[in-house]
Parts: sequence; C-alpha cells; structure tokens
Amino acid sequence: MITVYGDEKSGNCYKIKLTLNLLNINYQWQNVDLMKGETKTAEFLAKSPQGKLPIIELADGRVLAESNAIIGYLAKDSMLIPNDEFDKALMYQWMFYEQYTHEPCIAVARFIQLYQNMPAERQSEYEALHAKGGQILTLLNEQLSDKPFVIGSQFTLADIALYAYTHVAHEGGFDLIHYPNINKWLEQVSKQKGYVSMFG
Amino acid sequence: MITVYGDEKSGNCYKIKLTLNLLNINYQWQNVDLMKGETKTAEFLAKSPQGKLPIIELADGRVLAESNAIIGYLAKDSMLIPNDEFDKALMYQWMFYEQYTHEPCIAVARFIQLYQNMPAERQSEYEALHAKGGQILTLLNEQLSDKPFVIGSQFTLADIALYAYTHVAHEGGFDLIHYPNINKWLEQVSKQKGYVSMFG
Repeated sequence: MITVYGDEKSGNCYKIKLTLNLLNINYQWQNVDLMKGETKTAEFLAKSPQGKLPIIELADGRVLAESNAIIGYLAKDSMLIPNDEFDKALMYQWMFYEQYTHEPCIAVARFIQLYQNMPAERQSEYEALHAKGGQILTLLNEQLSDKPFVIGSQFTLADIALYAYTHVAHEGGFDLIHYPNINKWLEQVSKQKGYVSMFG
Repeated sequence: MITVYGDEKSGNCYKIKLTLNLLNINYQWQNVDLMKGETKTAEFLAKSPQGKLPIIELADGRVLAESNAIIGYLAKDSMLIPNDEFDKALMYQWMFYEQYTHEPCIAVARFIQLYQNMPAERQSEYEALHAKGGQILTLLNEQLSDKPFVIGSQFTLADIALYAYTHVAHEGGFDLIHYPNINKWLEQVSKQKGYVSMFG
C-alpha cells in the first residue's frame, strides 16, 4: 500500500489526498508536523533528503517527492491526464506555473497568516505577495473565462494542482469574490466523483 | 516549423535550444530582449499572457509556455524521457525541484550579478541566495555521487533542466570547484550527441 507523509493543512499535501480519493486508490496517511520540526529528524531525512512534505513511499520502499510529480505518477493511465500530447503539455505548463508562480505567492501569504499568525517582520513581504497575488488570480480568472476547467473541457491534474491553494486563498487574506470564474470552477471541482475536502 | 521566443542568456530558454538540438528538430529562434521590455509589448502578451520567456509557437499558431513543460512536449516519445513510469516520475520530481527550489536561487543570484550588475539594494538578498545555493548544490552533488545522471544511468530531461543554470552558476558567484560530482556530470552532459552551448 502507498504511504503518504503529509501535513493536513498543506495544499501541496492535499493534492495527493485529493488525487488518491478521486482515483479510489488505497493509501495510509502519516501525519508529519513541520512546525514541530518533524521534517528535519534523521528518520525523515533518510526518506526525504530535502526534509520537505509531501512524499509518498511505495510498498517496496521507493520514495517520490514534489507534489506535482507525485500526482503525475498516481494518475498515470487515468482520465486525469489527457491523451493528446499537446493537451498533456498544457496540463504540465499550468502545473509548472502553479509551483513556480502561484504557490510561492498564494501559499506563502497563507503560511504567514495561518501558520505564523502574521509576524511583524514579514508584514512588508505579505503586502508584496498580495499585490502579486491579485495578478495571479486575475490571470487564472481570465483563463477560466471560456472553459470549465484550466486547460479546457477535461478535468485534469492542472485543476487539482491549482485548486489546492486557490480554494483556501482566503486563509491568506485573498478575497475570491472578485473572481467569478474562479468561484464557478471551484464549485465544479468540488462536484467531481470521489472529491474529498482538505480535512475530510 | 517551431518558433522559439527566447533570450540567449536565459537558462530557461537554453533548455529549449539544447533539447531541440539533441533531438535534431528544426526550429527558428526569435530573440526577445526582456531587459528592453520586449516581453511586455501587446504583441508578445497576445502570445504569452504572463509576459515571460521562453515560449514556443507551433506552425498552427498554438503556444506553449513554461520551459520544463515545453521540453516535455518536444521530447515526447524520445529517449530523453524514461519508459518506466516510476523513473518518469523521478524525472519530473527533479524538474519540479529545479523550478521550485534550484532556479529561484541559482538563477536569481546570476540575474542580480550578470543582468543587474549587483545593485546595492539587492545585496542582502544575494547573500541569502548564496547560503541557500550552497545547500542546493550540495544536494545535487550528493545525488550524483553514485550515478552518472540525475535519476540514474539514463540521460533525461531532468539533466537538461538542472544543467541549464548549474553550468553557469559561476556567473552568479557560485564556485563549482567544491562539487566534484557536479563537474563530472557537467562534462558528461556536454558530450551528448547534438549538444550545443548556450551561445552556440
């Protein structure tokens, strides 16, 4: 059976839980509390040299890191990955966009607000992230203006990757009321068969 | 024919050039100078809403962004992508690591030094990037301690993605003499059939 090492509040970890549930794959979940330093123990570092969540461990002991690489592996040969090579590349385009641009902004603002309770020394960084986050959410709202899902009519891993931190963006102080296409899309994602909420 | 819109000094753009040459695919290169604002013109934004390089445009006008998604598309059905699903996932693990962790450190230090000529207001950021960069290069050096390429015996897109900014890390002030496995690996990459240098 697959073991997921994760933190329930983390959007990157939630991507794995959501994908496993959508695909109806059996797994066990091992909570790791990064705020208590549990990602930096010798035991955890032996599995994950970077000391970061999430990772998955297969029954034979092989370990995989990086949330979007993990969901790519779990969803192999499923309908969550398009067959068409260009559509598949578009899916990965949005997944790389999520990790390079969206997550370091939306998720970091949320981390500062939700995990760290807004320390004074990160206030100016938080404000800068909000300026940038507005552009990021506007781009996503535009992308969803003429299609139900991120790359078109098919629900793919790009939706899962972007949903993870977008649907909790309010916990980082972003008001999603300004982005009607995003709201419609969030609702569509939550209606997928096998959907599970972050703490579900 | 494929058109690449890129900046020759950019490692992210170089990944595309290197992959196209390794695969012997015909293309034309369109220089876009980001320091002159050429990524923010209406014409360029119509192709790339983010206003970022690189992008590729296919003969039929379809556009793809994000360097690692682009090389994934170009290399479909080639030996640069492992057939085994777990190996393929490991390749993507290192490609996501490159974009999320390696590039925002190594490439940004290089940008500050090479493009911006070390402005005083970025000095403390540059020093922080150097502390982090040492850990990143150490992790990569460790990963290469028992294998010729990043995920094993096969030369893959993970090598191309990580090579792009690692081989010019000295332009960001990193001294690669401390990382012997990285040096051996850089040499192996440069011996691949079809290899082309950044300005070649």
